[in-house]
Amino acid sequence: MTQPPTERTRVKRLNKRAHYDEATIHPILDAQPMCTVGYVFNGTPYVTPTLQWREGNHIYWHGSAASRMLEAAEDTEVCVNVTLFDGMVMARSGFNHSCNYRSVMAFGKAFKVNDRDEKEMRLKNFMEHLYPGRWDTLRKMSDKELKATTMLGLELNEVSAKVRNGPPGDDEEDYALPLWAGVIPMVTTMLAPVDDPRLIKGHTPPAHVKNFKIG
Amino acid sequence: MTQPPTERTRVKRLNKRAHYDEATIHPILDAQPMCTVGYVFNGTPYVTPTLQWREGNHIYWHGSAASRMLEAAEDTEVCVNVTLFDGMVMARSGFNHSCNYRSVMAFGKAFKVNDRDEKEMRLKNFMEHLYPGRWDTLRKMSDKELKATTMLGLELNEVSAKVRNGPPGDDEEDYALPLWAGVIPMVTTMLAPVDDPRLIKGHTPPAHVKNFKIG
Repeated sequence: MTQPPTERTRVKRLNKRAHYDEATIHPILDAQPMCTVGYVFNGTPYVTPTLQWREGNHIYWHGSAASRMLEAAEDTEVCVNVTLFDGMVMARSGFNHSCNYRSVMAFGKAFKVNDRDEKEMRLKNFMEHLYPGRWDTLRKMSDKELKATTMLGLELNEVSAKVRNGPPGDDEEDYALPLWAGVIPMVTTMLAPVDDPRLIKGHTPPAHVKNFKIG
Repeated sequence: MTQPPTERTRVKRLNKRAHYDEATIHPILDAQPMCTVGYVFNGTPYVTPTLQWREGNHIYWHGSAASRMLEAAEDTEVCVNVTLFDGMVMARSGFNHSCNYRSVMAFGKAFKVNDRDEKEMRLKNFMEHLYPGRWDTLRKMSDKELKATTMLGLELNEVSAKVRNGPPGDDEEDYALPLWAGVIPMVTTMLAPVDDPRLIKGHTPPAHVKNFKIG
C-alpha cells in the first residue's frame, strides 16, 4: 500500500529519493531496531534513542516506567526516525560528497499499551523478531516487571522513507578530474558472541545468536 | 571539563550510565558522523538524520539551503543525538535483555554560520576529519555552492552521554538457569571501496579511503 504524502512526510529535498510505499518502508523498520524518538517536552525538542519493532502497520518501543521519554511521549505527537547508514559517497568536489542510507520518518500520536497480556505478547513478538525461539527458553516475566515496563505504539499512517544508494553524482565537467571517486560501503557486523562471565559451563550460543543481523 | 547536568541533560534513568565530561562526550561525537537533529516545526517534533562534525566545543551540520530541517532549526532549540550501537545484550529473562551503546544528547539553540569563508573553512575541517588530505585534491567549491549550503552549529554547553557496556545484569536467582547468556558485539565495517563507474582508469583508492572508519 502506498500512502499519499502529507505536509510532514512529503520529502522536500531531492524527492527522487522519496518513497511512501510499505514495500520500501517495512523492510527498513524490520532491518534496524535502533531508532530515535523525537518529542516535545516543556516546549523544547528531545531525541531519545531506543529499540523499535514493527507489527503489521504499527511500531512499538518500550522501556522503564520511570523513563522521561516514555512518560512525555504518551498521547502526544512524536517523530520516530530509523536510519541504516550504508556508505560514504566520495565525489570529485566537496559539494557532491554524500552518504548512502535508508531512512524512515514516522509521525503521529503515540499511544500507550496498557493491557498486561497485550504488553507481554508484544514483548514476545519483539524478542522473537530479534531472536527466533528465545522467548520460551527464558525465565517468564513477572507481573512486577510488566508493571515496570511502559510500552508505546505508533500507527504507521504518516510515514516516508528516503533512500540514497549508488555512486557519486558529479558535475559533468568534474568527471575529467584526476582523482579517485566512488563509494565506501558500510555494514553492521556481528563479532563472535561473548559468553557472560557467569555462564553455566557447557552452554553455547544458540542458532538465533549466530543468525542475528542488522541491515 | 565536566559540566554540571541541567534539568534536560540530567540522565533520569540508570544514572550510573551517565557522563557529563568531555573525555567521554567528545570521542563519541568524533567516532560517529551520523546524528539525528530534533526540532519543533509548526508545533510538532521532527527528527532528521544528517552528518555532524565537532570542532572544539561546537558541533556543526549542513545541507541544502532548501532543507526544511536547516530552515526550521536555525535560531531555535534543537536536540542532537549521536548513537553508536555496540551490541546486543542477552540475559536470562526478557526483562534484563538490553543493548550496549554510546550515546550523546546535546541541547541548545542552533545558530547559522553566515560568513562565506567560515563556511568554507568548516566544510574543509569536516572533510579533513573524515578523509585526511582529501580537500586539497578536490575541485574547489564555488560561491554558488557555498551559497546553496546552509550550515548550522551548536555550542556544547548542555550535553550528556549515556553509555552501556559489558555483560547482562541478571537477577541473582536467574544465573542458575540453563541457557546461554552474553553479548553479541557489533561494529561498523567498511567493505572494499567501489570505484565510480566513470572513474578515470588508473586511479586507486587513497589512504584516507582505506583508513576510514566509524566507531
